[in-house]
Amino acid sequence: MTMPLAVSLGDPAGIGPEIVAKAWQWRQTAPTPSFFAIGDPAAIKAVWSGPLETIDDPAEAAGCFAGALPVLRVGGRGGQIVPGKPSLEGARYSLDSLEMAVGLTRSGATSGLVTGPVSKAQLYAVGFTHPGQTEFIAERCGVSDDMVAMMLVGPTLRTVPVTSHIAYQDVPQALNSERIAMKARTVVRGLQRLFGIENPRLAIAGLNPHAGEDGTLGREEIDIIIPAIEKLREEGFDVSGPHPPDAMFHGRARQTYDVALCMYHDQALIPLKTLHFDEGVNMTLGMPIVRTAPDHGTAFAIAGRNEAHPGAMIAALQIAAACAERAVQG
Amino acid sequence: MTMPLAVSLGDPAGIGPEIVAKAWQWRQTAPTPSFFAIGDPAAIKAVWSGPLETIDDPAEAAGCFAGALPVLRVGGRGGQIVPGKPSLEGARYSLDSLEMAVGLTRSGATSGLVTGPVSKAQLYAVGFTHPGQTEFIAERCGVSDDMVAMMLVGPTLRTVPVTSHIAYQDVPQALNSERIAMKARTVVRGLQRLFGIENPRLAIAGLNPHAGEDGTLGREEIDIIIPAIEKLREEGFDVSGPHPPDAMFHGRARQTYDVALCMYHDQALIPLKTLHFDEGVNMTLGMPIVRTAPDHGTAFAIAGRNEAHPGAMIAALQIAAACAERAVQG
Repeated sequence: MTMPLAVSLGDPAGIGPEIVAKAWQWRQTAPTPSFFAIGDPAAIKAVWSGPLETIDDPAEAAGCFAGALPVLRVGGRGGQIVPGKPSLEGARYSLDSLEMAVGLTRSGATSGLVTGPVSKAQLYAVGFTHPGQTEFIAERCGVSDDMVAMMLVGPTLRTVPVTSHIAYQDVPQALNSERIAMKARTVVRGLQRLFGIENPRLAIAGLNPHAGEDGTLGREEIDIIIPAIEKLREEGFDVSGPHPPDAMFHGRARQTYDVALCMYHDQALIPLKTLHFDEGVNMTLGMPIVRTAPDHGTAFAIAGRNEAHPGAMIAALQIAAACAERAVQG
Repeated sequence: MTMPLAVSLGDPAGIGPEIVAKAWQWRQTAPTPSFFAIGDPAAIKAVWSGPLETIDDPAEAAGCFAGALPVLRVGGRGGQIVPGKPSLEGARYSLDSLEMAVGLTRSGATSGLVTGPVSKAQLYAVGFTHPGQTEFIAERCGVSDDMVAMMLVGPTLRTVPVTSHIAYQDVPQALNSERIAMKARTVVRGLQRLFGIENPRLAIAGLNPHAGEDGTLGREEIDIIIPAIEKLREEGFDVSGPHPPDAMFHGRARQTYDVALCMYHDQALIPLKTLHFDEGVNMTLGMPIVRTAPDHGTAFAIAGRNEAHPGAMIAALQIAAACAERAVQG
């Protein structure tokens, strides 16, 4: 029997509940594997009138999925959920939901984990100390932050930022050859194990305009990136670069690699979201479990207005299912 | 009578001669206004067997354009042009060609200037002291570098970088509110005068991921960019931002502004080239003349192999002609 995916609802006042419900509702035209939501059923009922079925065990999800959206209840602390109005109560629910989803997936009761969008500001206010959900999940899986990689996946592009949620000016100091090489190794193993790509082709971006033009526009390519590329090649990886960042994401260029390794957040995220805004998936490589997420935020401003597009959530479910299947086979 | 556009060939060993010839050849299916090339006819003959007509005066171009590519000869210093093999001789030709093209356009003998791709490394080797063609042209037009703006134009996106050819790490120090505001004013005037947009909508990007998230991921938005936006609004401009850089270039977002003002080279160039690699046009705003260029380099590696795509050159000619017409009417 194929196990279901677990989906944490994210912040109950954001668009998480709505896009999870819509992903279930659209299951005929945008097929997803069976999944179940983990969270407060009231948060879903507040924005959606379709059929819900409360379950007590992930194993019940597959049986009822055809007729209703299965929900594993988390919370019960009381308190009112109002779409678009984040609250500390809601932040606690989202944390409980995430914690249970990770635990169940770690235990093998689900085939993989899809996380709904949370509000970091709200989580910090209730004592959350990790930079984001990814680091929290890595810790629960007993994996060091350094060993995981955030990969953004769209229909025609995959990108991985070597540095991510740090200020623009802190990027150069945060880069070094070993960090780039470690990230590359994690990504290669992930593409092999979860995407079935035997010898992944990595395109490594420069940091500076025109990849530094032989040092005249910055030296990080010469001092940091090229040594990392040489090291990776010695290890037998198929690596190209450093590429001028602006010339590596157009259609013909994208056909020459399986993943682009980028030096900073926006270098990875600008091309991905420019091309695939409504279907971008954020996935974590380097962990013992499969984990994906829609690559957007809580969108409090449109929560409860039936305007949220479930495309990225659906893509996150589809990719998680395909990766989980390969991980089991592999 | 409509005056022709002047086209400098750029480095004769690059793809400039080929794309200029192809733009003339494709004039039936991709209509361009009449133009003439400025450079060494031998450089064109080396890569193209179509009809050339050597002219002595720009006024002759329109008369012969239907039957042959008009060329105003520059050079005569001797020396052999070999496609793909840049030489100092060739660099001097490209500089002479640029100088004459600017002079003729300044004098009113042409309607505008389109510049072919040059090799900066080659130009520096023959004593060129400007950072690029744009700064050279600005100086010849008597305009300070600070007052001009490089705008990248594609079919669905226009971007302007506030800083351009400097190292990644030098960007934060190079940014200040007045520089952003000056660039914005130049861009607004340019869009009004050359594109006929009465009240241009500017979208201003943040520098940091998520536009700094209220200062937690960098303070430039709070200290520099927001004050610039407030100043511009006081002056009556239609300005939005600072936008999270990764969320401002997808299809729906692009419909909300006429131009994106970006903080650094790749922030402007990555989305533009990701979407419009073969048709990107680089144009200079803030000068008394109209000047455009294809947004690509000399591509020495493919010169002379009949593989160069003239799309960006054709777009540069078309945009220059449209802008020149509006500048005359305005």
